Amino acid sequence: MADHLQLYSYWRSSAAYRVRIGLNLKGLAYETLPVHLVRDGGEQHTDGFRELNPQELVPVLKHGDRILRQSVAILEYLDETWPEPALLPATSRDRQRSRAIALAVACDIHPLNNLRVLQYFDREWNVPQPERDEWVRHWITDGFAAVEAMLTDHPSTGEFCEGNTPGLADCCLVPQVYNARRFGVDLSPYPTIERIERACLALPAFDVARPEKQPDAPQPN
Amino acid sequence: MADHLQLYSYWRSSAAYRVRIGLNLKGLAYETLPVHLVRDGGEQHTDGFRELNPQELVPVLKHGDRILRQSVAILEYLDETWPEPALLPATSRDRQRSRAIALAVACDIHPLNNLRVLQYFDREWNVPQPERDEWVRHWITDGFAAVEAMLTDHPSTGEFCEGNTPGLADCCLVPQVYNARRFGVDLSPYPTIERIERACLALPAFDVARPEKQPDAPQPN
Repeated sequence: MADHLQLYSYWRSSAAYRVRIGLNLKGLAYETLPVHLVRDGGEQHTDGFRELNPQELVPVLKHGDRILRQSVAILEYLDETWPEPALLPATSRDRQRSRAIALAVACDIHPLNNLRVLQYFDREWNVPQPERDEWVRHWITDGFAAVEAMLTDHPSTGEFCEGNTPGLADCCLVPQVYNARRFGVDLSPYPTIERIERACLALPAFDVARPEKQPDAPQPN
Repeated sequence: MADHLQLYSYWRSSAAYRVRIGLNLKGLAYETLPVHLVRDGGEQHTDGFRELNPQELVPVLKHGDRILRQSVAILEYLDETWPEPALLPATSRDRQRSRAIALAVACDIHPLNNLRVLQYFDREWNVPQPERDEWVRHWITDGFAAVEAMLTDHPSTGEFCEGNTPGLADCCLVPQVYNARRFGVDLSPYPTIERIERACLALPAFDVARPEKQPDAPQPN
Protein backbone atom coordinates (compact mmCIF):
# COMPACT_ATOMS: atom_id res chain seq x y z
CA MET A 1 0.00 0.00 0.00
CA ALA A 2 1.98 2.94 -1.32
CA ASP A 3 -0.33 5.42 0.36
CA HIS A 4 -0.37 3.79 3.77
CA LEU A 5 0.15 6.39 6.50
CA GLN A 6 1.83 5.51 9.79
CA LEU A 7 2.28 8.08 12.53
CA TYR A 8 4.96 7.59 15.14
CA SER A 9 3.28 9.41 17.98
CA TYR A 10 3.14 9.88 21.72
CA TRP A 11 -0.23 10.68 23.25
CA ARG A 12 0.97 13.77 25.12
CA SER A 13 3.42 15.13 22.51
CA SER A 14 1.96 18.39 21.28
CA ALA A 15 3.95 18.16 18.02
CA ALA A 16 2.37 14.75 17.31
CA TYR A 17 -1.04 16.20 18.28
CA ARG A 18 -0.61 18.83 15.51
CA VAL A 19 -0.12 16.15 12.88
CA ARG A 20 -3.04 14.07 14.17
CA ILE A 21 -5.29 17.10 13.71
CA GLY A 22 -3.94 17.72 10.21
CA LEU A 23 -4.49 14.11 9.15
CA ASN A 24 -8.03 14.20 10.54
CA LEU A 25 -8.85 17.51 8.85
CA LYS A 26 -7.78 15.93 5.55
CA GLY A 27 -9.94 12.89 6.29
CA LEU A 28 -6.91 10.58 6.00
CA ALA A 29 -6.88 7.23 7.78
CA TYR A 30 -3.61 6.44 9.53
CA GLU A 31 -2.08 3.90 11.83
CA THR A 32 -0.71 5.08 15.19
CA LEU A 33 2.65 3.63 16.22
CA PRO A 34 3.20 4.73 19.83
CA VAL A 35 6.68 5.80 20.91
CA HIS A 36 6.86 6.06 24.68
CA LEU A 37 8.95 9.16 25.42
CA VAL A 38 9.50 8.41 29.12
CA ARG A 39 9.55 4.65 29.72
CA ASP A 40 13.04 3.02 29.87
CA GLY A 41 14.70 6.39 29.26
CA GLY A 42 12.61 7.10 26.18
CA GLU A 43 11.94 4.86 23.18
CA GLN A 44 12.81 7.77 20.87
CA HIS A 45 16.46 7.21 21.81
CA THR A 46 16.63 3.60 20.57
CA ASP A 47 18.75 2.76 17.52
CA GLY A 48 15.65 1.74 15.62
CA PHE A 49 13.92 5.06 16.11
CA ARG A 50 17.06 7.08 15.52
CA GLU A 51 17.20 5.61 12.02
CA LEU A 52 13.73 6.97 11.39
CA ASN A 53 14.56 10.34 12.90
CA PRO A 54 18.10 11.37 13.87
CA GLN A 55 16.54 14.14 15.94
CA GLU A 56 15.10 11.46 18.25
CA LEU A 57 11.81 13.34 18.42
CA VAL A 58 8.23 12.52 17.54
CA PRO A 59 6.29 12.79 15.34
CA VAL A 60 7.49 10.96 12.27
CA LEU A 61 5.00 10.23 9.52
CA LYS A 62 5.65 7.41 7.10
CA HIS A 63 3.83 7.77 3.80
CA GLY A 64 4.52 4.51 1.98
CA ASP A 65 8.33 4.42 2.11
CA ARG A 66 8.71 8.18 2.61
CA ILE A 67 9.92 9.22 6.05
CA LEU A 68 8.61 12.66 6.98
CA ARG A 69 9.91 14.66 9.94
CA GLN A 70 9.13 17.95 11.68
CA SER A 71 5.45 18.48 12.40
CA VAL A 72 4.99 21.79 10.58
CA ALA A 73 6.84 20.49 7.51
CA ILE A 74 4.62 17.39 7.64
CA LEU A 75 1.50 19.58 7.71
CA GLU A 76 2.78 21.50 4.66
CA TYR A 77 3.34 18.15 2.92
CA LEU A 78 -0.18 16.99 3.73
CA ASP A 79 -1.54 20.23 2.31
CA GLU A 80 0.45 19.86 -0.92
CA THR A 81 -0.34 16.16 -1.34
CA TRP A 82 -4.05 16.32 -0.47
CA PRO A 83 -5.03 19.92 -1.23
CA GLU A 84 -8.65 19.71 -0.07
CA PRO A 85 -9.70 20.88 2.42
CA ALA A 86 -6.85 23.38 2.48
CA LEU A 87 -4.86 24.00 5.66
CA LEU A 88 -3.55 27.29 4.27
CA PRO A 89 -5.62 30.21 2.94
CA ALA A 90 -5.72 31.34 -0.68
CA THR A 91 -3.47 34.41 -0.77
CA SER A 92 0.24 34.55 -0.01
CA ARG A 93 -0.39 37.38 2.44
CA ASP A 94 -2.85 35.29 4.44
CA ARG A 95 -0.65 32.23 4.17
CA GLN A 96 2.22 34.26 5.59
CA ARG A 97 0.12 35.23 8.59
CA SER A 98 -1.06 31.65 9.19
CA ARG A 99 2.48 30.36 9.07
CA ALA A 100 3.70 33.15 11.35
CA ILE A 101 1.10 32.24 14.00
CA ALA A 102 1.92 28.54 13.62
CA LEU A 103 5.64 29.22 14.00
CA ALA A 104 5.15 31.62 16.92
CA VAL A 105 3.98 28.46 18.69
CA ALA A 106 6.16 25.85 16.98
CA CYS A 107 9.43 27.82 17.21
CA ASP A 108 9.06 30.21 20.12
CA ILE A 109 6.90 28.43 22.71
CA HIS A 110 6.92 24.67 22.35
CA PRO A 111 10.65 23.82 21.89
CA LEU A 112 11.51 25.72 25.05
CA ASN A 113 9.17 23.55 27.07
CA ASN A 114 9.88 20.22 25.48
CA LEU A 115 10.60 17.16 27.63
CA ARG A 116 14.30 17.08 26.71
CA VAL A 117 14.74 20.67 27.92
CA LEU A 118 13.10 20.00 31.27
CA GLN A 119 15.24 16.87 31.60
CA TYR A 120 18.36 18.99 30.97
CA PHE A 121 17.43 21.38 33.78
CA ASP A 122 16.91 18.49 36.17
CA ARG A 123 19.98 16.52 35.15
CA GLU A 124 22.56 19.26 34.56
CA TRP A 125 21.47 22.12 36.80
CA ASN A 126 19.34 20.39 39.41
CA VAL A 127 16.58 22.96 38.92
CA PRO A 128 13.69 22.11 41.28
CA GLN A 129 10.32 21.12 39.80
CA PRO A 130 8.49 24.34 40.80
CA GLU A 131 11.08 26.45 38.97
CA ARG A 132 10.92 24.22 35.91
CA ASP A 133 7.14 24.59 35.90
CA GLU A 134 7.51 28.35 36.24
CA TRP A 135 9.85 28.34 33.23
CA VAL A 136 7.20 26.50 31.19
CA ARG A 137 4.50 28.96 32.20
CA HIS A 138 6.76 31.91 31.44
CA TRP A 139 7.21 30.99 27.77
CA ILE A 140 3.58 30.05 27.29
CA THR A 141 2.31 33.32 28.74
CA ASP A 142 4.93 35.32 26.83
CA GLY A 143 4.02 33.55 23.59
CA PHE A 144 0.26 33.58 24.11
CA ALA A 145 0.28 37.32 24.81
CA ALA A 146 1.89 37.80 21.38
CA VAL A 147 -0.41 35.34 19.60
CA GLU A 148 -3.47 36.91 21.24
CA ALA A 149 -2.31 40.32 19.95
CA MET A 150 -1.79 38.87 16.46
CA LEU A 151 -5.35 37.48 16.50
CA THR A 152 -7.33 40.21 18.24
CA ASP A 153 -9.01 42.73 15.99
CA HIS A 154 -7.24 41.41 12.92
CA PRO A 155 -9.58 41.33 9.91
CA SER A 156 -8.42 37.82 8.93
CA THR A 157 -9.32 36.27 12.30
CA GLY A 158 -12.66 34.52 12.14
CA GLU A 159 -14.11 31.57 13.95
CA PHE A 160 -10.59 30.15 13.64
CA CYS A 161 -7.11 31.73 13.47
CA GLU A 162 -7.55 32.40 9.76
CA GLY A 163 -11.13 32.97 8.68
CA ASN A 164 -13.86 30.41 9.22
CA THR A 165 -11.91 27.31 8.21
CA PRO A 166 -9.56 25.50 10.57
CA GLY A 167 -5.98 25.38 9.32
CA LEU A 168 -2.26 25.26 10.00
CA ALA A 169 -2.28 27.86 12.78
CA ASP A 170 -5.11 26.09 14.61
CA CYS A 171 -3.27 22.75 14.30
CA CYS A 172 -0.41 24.33 16.29
CA LEU A 173 -2.41 26.48 18.69
CA VAL A 174 -4.80 23.89 20.13
CA PRO A 175 -2.08 21.46 21.33
CA GLN A 176 -0.26 24.39 22.93
CA VAL A 177 -3.41 25.32 24.85
CA TYR A 178 -3.56 21.73 26.07
CA ASN A 179 -0.01 22.13 27.39
CA ALA A 180 -0.90 25.45 28.97
CA ARG A 181 -3.74 23.86 30.95
CA ARG A 182 -1.50 20.98 31.95
CA PHE A 183 0.93 23.43 33.54
CA GLY A 184 -1.78 25.53 35.17
CA VAL A 185 -1.47 28.65 33.01
CA ASP A 186 -4.25 31.18 33.61
CA LEU A 187 -5.84 31.55 30.17
CA SER A 188 -8.18 34.42 31.03
CA PRO A 189 -5.88 37.06 29.45
CA TYR A 190 -6.26 35.28 26.09
CA PRO A 191 -9.99 35.26 25.28
CA THR A 192 -9.46 34.97 21.52
CA ILE A 193 -7.21 31.94 21.93
CA GLU A 194 -9.75 30.35 24.27
CA ARG A 195 -12.62 31.08 21.87
CA ILE A 196 -10.75 29.55 18.93
CA GLU A 197 -9.77 26.50 20.97
CA ARG A 198 -13.46 25.92 21.84
CA ALA A 199 -14.46 26.22 18.17
CA CYS A 200 -11.72 23.75 17.18
CA LEU A 201 -12.46 21.14 19.83
CA ALA A 202 -16.12 21.14 18.79
CA LEU A 203 -14.96 19.60 15.50
CA PRO A 204 -14.43 15.82 15.35
CA ALA A 205 -11.04 16.29 13.59
CA PHE A 206 -9.70 18.01 16.71
CA ASP A 207 -11.69 16.06 19.24
CA VAL A 208 -10.46 12.60 18.26
CA ALA A 209 -6.87 13.93 18.12
CA ARG A 210 -6.94 14.85 21.83
CA PRO A 211 -4.17 13.28 23.89
CA GLU A 212 -6.51 11.41 26.20
CA LYS A 213 -8.22 9.74 23.23
CA GLN A 214 -5.03 8.16 21.87
CA PRO A 215 -4.45 4.41 22.02
CA ASP A 216 -1.30 4.91 24.12
CA ALA A 217 -2.92 7.26 26.66
CA PRO A 218 -3.13 5.88 30.20
CA GLN A 219 -6.53 4.35 30.79
CA PRO A 220 -8.60 5.69 33.69
CA ASN A 221 -8.86 3.16 36.51
CA MET B 1 6.34 52.48 -3.48
CA ALA B 2 4.06 49.51 -2.86
CA ASP B 3 6.88 47.04 -3.29
CA HIS B 4 9.35 48.76 -0.99
CA LEU B 5 10.99 46.23 1.32
CA GLN B 6 12.20 47.21 4.79
CA LEU B 7 13.90 44.70 7.07
CA TYR B 8 13.95 45.29 10.81
CA SER B 9 17.17 43.54 11.60
CA TYR B 10 19.99 43.14 14.09
CA TRP B 11 23.41 42.31 12.72
CA ARG B 12 23.96 39.28 14.95
CA SER B 13 20.40 37.89 14.95
CA SER B 14 20.54 34.60 13.12
CA ALA B 15 16.82 34.77 12.30
CA ALA B 16 17.36 38.14 10.60
CA TYR B 17 20.42 36.69 8.84
CA ARG B 18 18.17 34.00 7.28
CA VAL B 19 15.89 36.62 5.77
CA ARG B 20 18.82 38.70 4.50
CA ILE B 21 20.08 35.64 2.62
CA GLY B 22 16.62 34.96 1.18
CA LEU B 23 16.20 38.53 -0.02
CA ASN B 24 19.65 38.44 -1.61
CA LEU B 25 19.03 35.08 -3.31
CA LYS B 26 15.89 36.59 -4.83
CA GLY B 27 17.87 39.65 -5.95
CA LEU B 28 15.55 41.97 -4.02
CA ALA B 29 16.78 45.36 -2.85
CA TYR B 30 15.78 46.22 0.70
CA GLU B 31 16.34 48.82 3.35
CA THR B 32 17.85 47.73 6.68
CA LEU B 33 16.26 49.24 9.78
CA PRO B 34 18.49 48.24 12.70
CA VAL B 35 16.88 47.23 16.00
CA HIS B 36 19.50 47.04 18.73
CA LEU B 37 18.63 43.99 20.83
CA VAL B 38 20.90 44.83 23.75
CA ARG B 39 21.28 48.61 24.12
CA ASP B 40 18.95 50.25 26.69
CA GLY B 41 17.40 46.90 27.57
CA GLY B 42 16.62 46.12 23.94
CA GLU B 43 14.89 48.28 21.33
CA GLN B 44 12.67 45.30 20.44
CA HIS B 45 10.80 45.91 23.71
CA THR B 46 9.75 49.50 22.89
CA ASP B 47 6.08 50.29 22.32
CA GLY B 48 6.83 51.24 18.73
CA PHE B 49 8.41 47.92 17.90
CA ARG B 50 5.82 45.90 19.80
CA GLU B 51 3.20 47.31 17.45
CA LEU B 52 5.17 45.89 14.53
CA ASN B 53 5.69 42.58 16.26
CA PRO B 54 3.96 41.60 19.51
CA GLN B 55 6.57 38.86 19.89
CA GLU B 56 9.22 41.58 20.37
CA LEU B 57 11.62 39.66 18.15
CA VAL B 58 13.46 40.44 14.94
CA PRO B 59 13.20 40.08 12.03
CA VAL B 60 10.14 41.87 10.73
CA LEU B 61 9.87 42.51 7.01
CA LYS B 62 7.64 45.29 5.73
CA HIS B 63 6.52 44.82 2.15
CA GLY B 64 4.69 48.02 1.32
CA ASP B 65 2.15 48.17 4.15
CA ARG B 66 2.30 44.44 4.87
CA ILE B 67 3.94 43.48 8.15
CA LEU B 68 5.55 40.05 7.92
CA ARG B 69 6.82 38.14 10.96
CA GLN B 70 8.65 34.87 11.66
CA SER B 71 11.73 34.33 9.51
CA VAL B 72 10.75 30.97 7.99
CA ALA B 73 7.24 32.22 7.19
CA ILE B 74 8.86 35.30 5.60
CA LEU B 75 11.08 33.08 3.43
CA GLU B 76 8.00 31.12 2.30
CA TYR B 77 6.33 34.43 1.43
CA LEU B 78 9.34 35.57 -0.59
CA ASP B 79 9.28 32.28 -2.48
CA GLU B 80 5.57 32.60 -3.28
CA THR B 81 5.77 36.26 -4.23
CA TRP B 82 8.98 36.10 -6.30
CA PRO B 83 9.13 32.47 -7.46
CA GLU B 84 12.48 32.67 -9.27
CA PRO B 85 15.03 31.56 -8.29
CA ALA B 86 13.11 29.08 -6.13
CA LEU B 87 14.04 28.55 -2.47
CA LEU B 88 12.17 25.25 -2.43
CA PRO B 89 12.65 22.28 -4.78
CA ALA B 90 10.11 21.05 -7.32
CA THR B 91 8.52 18.01 -5.68
CA SER B 92 6.50 17.92 -2.48
CA ARG B 93 8.74 15.13 -1.17
CA ASP B 94 11.87 17.25 -1.61
CA ARG B 95 10.12 20.33 -0.27
CA GLN B 96 9.17 18.38 2.83
CA ARG B 97 12.80 17.44 3.40
CA SER B 98 14.01 21.02 2.88
CA ARG B 99 11.47 22.35 5.33
CA ALA B 100 12.31 19.62 7.85
CA ILE B 101 16.01 20.57 7.79
CA ALA B 102 15.14 24.27 8.02
CA LEU B 103 12.84 23.63 11.00
CA ALA B 104 15.32 21.29 12.71
CA VAL B 105 17.38 24.48 13.02
CA ALA B 106 14.61 27.07 13.36
CA CYS B 107 12.53 25.14 15.93
CA ASP B 108 14.90 22.82 17.71
CA ILE B 109 18.25 24.64 17.92
CA HIS B 110 17.93 28.37 17.59
CA PRO B 111 15.02 29.25 19.94
CA LEU B 112 16.73 27.43 22.80
CA ASN B 113 19.78 29.64 22.46
CA ASN B 114 18.10 32.93 21.79
CA LEU B 115 19.14 36.04 23.73
CA ARG B 116 15.91 36.13 25.75
CA VAL B 117 16.52 32.57 26.99
CA LEU B 118 20.07 33.32 28.11
CA GLN B 119 18.80 36.47 29.81
CA TYR B 120 16.21 34.37 31.68
CA PHE B 121 18.92 32.03 33.01
CA ASP B 122 20.97 34.97 34.20
CA ARG B 123 18.09 36.95 35.67
CA GLU B 124 15.91 34.21 37.20
CA TRP B 125 18.31 31.39 38.05
CA ASN B 126 21.64 33.16 38.26
CA VAL B 127 23.24 30.58 35.96
CA PRO B 128 26.93 31.46 35.49
CA GLN B 129 28.17 32.38 32.01
CA PRO B 130 30.18 29.15 31.45
CA GLU B 131 27.11 27.03 32.12
CA ARG B 132 24.99 29.19 29.84
CA ASP B 133 27.60 28.78 27.10
CA GLU B 134 27.62 25.03 27.69
CA TRP B 135 23.83 25.00 27.29
CA VAL B 136 24.17 26.76 23.94
CA ARG B 137 26.79 24.29 22.74
CA HIS B 138 24.70 21.34 23.92
CA TRP B 139 21.74 22.20 21.70
CA ILE B 140 23.89 23.09 18.71
CA THR B 141 25.85 19.82 18.87
CA ASP B 142 22.66 17.82 19.49
CA GLY B 143 20.94 19.51 16.55
CA PHE B 144 23.93 19.45 14.20
CA ALA B 145 24.45 15.72 14.78
CA ALA B 146 20.87 15.18 13.58
CA VAL B 147 21.15 17.58 10.64
CA GLU B 148 24.46 16.03 9.59
CA ALA B 149 22.76 12.60 9.61
CA MET B 150 19.86 13.98 7.55
CA LEU B 151 22.35 15.33 4.98
CA THR B 152 25.01 12.60 4.81
CA ASP B 153 24.56 10.04 2.08
CA HIS B 154 21.09 11.30 1.23
CA PRO B 155 20.54 11.28 -2.54
CA SER B 156 19.01 14.77 -2.47
CA THR B 157 22.02 16.40 -0.83
CA GLY B 158 24.21 18.10 -3.38
CA GLU B 159 26.47 21.11 -3.26
CA PHE B 160 23.81 22.55 -0.96
CA CYS B 161 21.31 20.99 1.47
CA GLU B 162 18.94 20.23 -1.38
CA GLY B 163 20.64 19.61 -4.70
CA ASN B 164 22.88 22.16 -6.37
CA THR B 165 20.79 25.24 -5.73
CA PRO B 166 20.83 27.12 -2.43
CA GLY B 167 17.47 27.26 -0.72
CA LEU B 168 15.39 27.42 2.43
CA ALA B 169 17.43 24.89 4.41
CA ASP B 170 20.69 26.68 3.58
CA CYS B 171 19.16 30.02 4.63
CA CYS B 172 18.62 28.52 8.09
CA LEU B 173 21.76 26.41 8.35
CA VAL B 174 24.43 29.01 7.56
CA PRO B 175 23.40 31.48 10.31
CA GLN B 176 23.33 28.60 12.80
CA VAL B 177 26.91 27.67 11.86
CA TYR B 178 27.87 31.31 12.52
CA ASN B 179 26.35 30.96 16.01
CA ALA B 180 28.15 27.66 16.53
CA ARG B 181 31.53 29.28 15.81
CA ARG B 182 30.68 32.21 18.05
CA PHE B 183 30.18 29.82 20.97
CA GLY B 184 33.24 27.74 20.18
CA VAL B 185 31.51 24.58 18.98
CA ASP B 186 33.89 22.03 17.45
CA LEU B 187 32.52 21.56 13.93
CA SER B 188 34.78 18.68 12.89
CA PRO B 189 32.07 16.03 13.53
CA TYR B 190 29.87 17.75 10.90
CA PRO B 191 31.86 17.70 7.64
CA THR B 192 28.78 17.91 5.41
CA ILE B 193 27.49 20.97 7.26
CA GLU B 194 30.92 22.59 6.99
CA ARG B 195 31.18 21.80 3.28
CA ILE B 196 27.73 23.26 2.58
CA GLU B 197 28.53 26.36 4.62
CA ARG B 198 31.67 26.94 2.53
CA ALA B 199 29.72 26.54 -0.72
CA CYS B 200 27.10 29.01 0.52
CA LEU B 201 29.48 31.68 1.76
CA ALA B 202 31.25 31.61 -1.61
CA LEU B 203 28.06 33.09 -3.08
CA PRO B 204 27.56 36.87 -2.88
CA ALA B 205 23.96 36.40 -1.64
CA PHE B 206 25.28 34.75 1.53
CA ASP B 207 28.47 36.76 1.78
CA VAL B 208 26.87 40.20 1.92
CA ALA B 209 24.31 38.91 4.45
CA ARG B 210 27.05 38.06 6.97
CA PRO B 211 26.62 39.69 10.38
CA GLU B 212 29.89 41.60 10.22
CA LYS B 213 28.90 43.20 6.90
CA GLN B 214 25.69 44.76 8.24
CA PRO B 215 25.36 48.51 8.68
CA ASP B 216 24.73 48.11 12.43
CA ALA B 217 27.71 45.80 13.05
CA PRO B 218 30.38 47.27 15.31
CA GLN B 219 33.13 48.81 13.22
CA PRO B 220 36.68 47.56 13.72
CA ASN B 221 38.89 50.19 15.33
